[in-house]
Amino acid sequence: MADSTDPRVTRSREAILSAARELLREDGPAAVTHQNVAKRAKVGRATVYRHWPQPRMLLDDTMAGVRMPFFRDPVPPVRPWLARQMRTLADELTLPEVQAVTAALLHGAPDEPDATARREQLIATISGQLGTALESAARTGELQASADLLDAPALIIGPLVFRSMLERRPVTDAMIDHLLTTLGTWR
Amino acid sequence: MADSTDPRVTRSREAILSAARELLREDGPAAVTHQNVAKRAKVGRATVYRHWPQPRMLLDDTMAGVRMPFFRDPVPPVRPWLARQMRTLADELTLPEVQAVTAALLHGAPDEPDATARREQLIATISGQLGTALESAARTGELQASADLLDAPALIIGPLVFRSMLERRPVTDAMIDHLLTTLGTWR
Repeated sequence: MADSTDPRVTRSREAILSAARELLREDGPAAVTHQNVAKRAKVGRATVYRHWPQPRMLLDDTMAGVRMPFFRDPVPPVRPWLARQMRTLADELTLPEVQAVTAALLHGAPDEPDATARREQLIATISGQLGTALESAARTGELQASADLLDAPALIIGPLVFRSMLERRPVTDAMIDHLLTTLGTWR
Repeated sequence: MADSTDPRVTRSREAILSAARELLREDGPAAVTHQNVAKRAKVGRATVYRHWPQPRMLLDDTMAGVRMPFFRDPVPPVRPWLARQMRTLADELTLPEVQAVTAALLHGAPDEPDATARREQLIATISGQLGTALESAARTGELQASADLLDAPALIIGPLVFRSMLERRPVTDAMIDHLLTTLGTWR
């Protein structure tokens, strides 16, 4: 691995990652190869290999550079917090970079252990945060759940992904509000 | 275009498409190039070009070969028909081929007019069929809608995609039933 304290090395790493994100956005994860990235970043292929000896490490770092909201840090009352998180997520899902990463997470072939690990980690994070928030809302009486709360990520995030990425239409506040009512009765 | 009545030509075309579907399933749409497909099908690149002069035509035909359920031919009563369609869709979404096509439809970069056209056609078909079915259910009094029926595809298909492709867990009949109740009150 290259020396991470040398500013020239840091600059070169950032330039390569920026080129890799462009390729991810334009053509998807299969396009993020050492050869393509070197060409796009106008550096030698050896330079890319010096930073990322394994192709998967390059793709991992490229995807990690795309910020995705994960329903972090739930705060009570839960309903307005959740509505804000869903709005942020819906807005981010209109960005080509975020769409490319989401599509890559959805595809991840079964014979790619890294892709599977990435997807599982994302889902565990979302489900964990959302579960904690909804359980606390149920405990304090803010929410009387009518849905299985283990289904909550699919019920409220699935429609946002479908609307933003397949229908390519805006997620309205009314839709977010309706989705929250599908979980149960809110106080 | 090659003569489509010659059985040798038909066989060659099928063998090439089969190789292309393998690549799509394993590595996504960006991997479906003339070069990769020729290598996988063990034919010359010129043979692939003879069948598909344009790369996009090859990808189109590869994706068209993957059967996807589109909520075709609605029949009353609507609720059980819809539940069956959702079950079929949920089962299909566990197949690697269908997952690859879905991910490709989700990604489709904005500068790829064909990808956009493919996605729009799929959505128009699904929304049209689903809309016709739900409107007839509302007209006959089978459904008292509480959701905007234009949101129906996102509300009931989005969660199936999320559950099958991101969570990789089975869609239960209880989940399908719950999703149908999010549309309104059924008689």
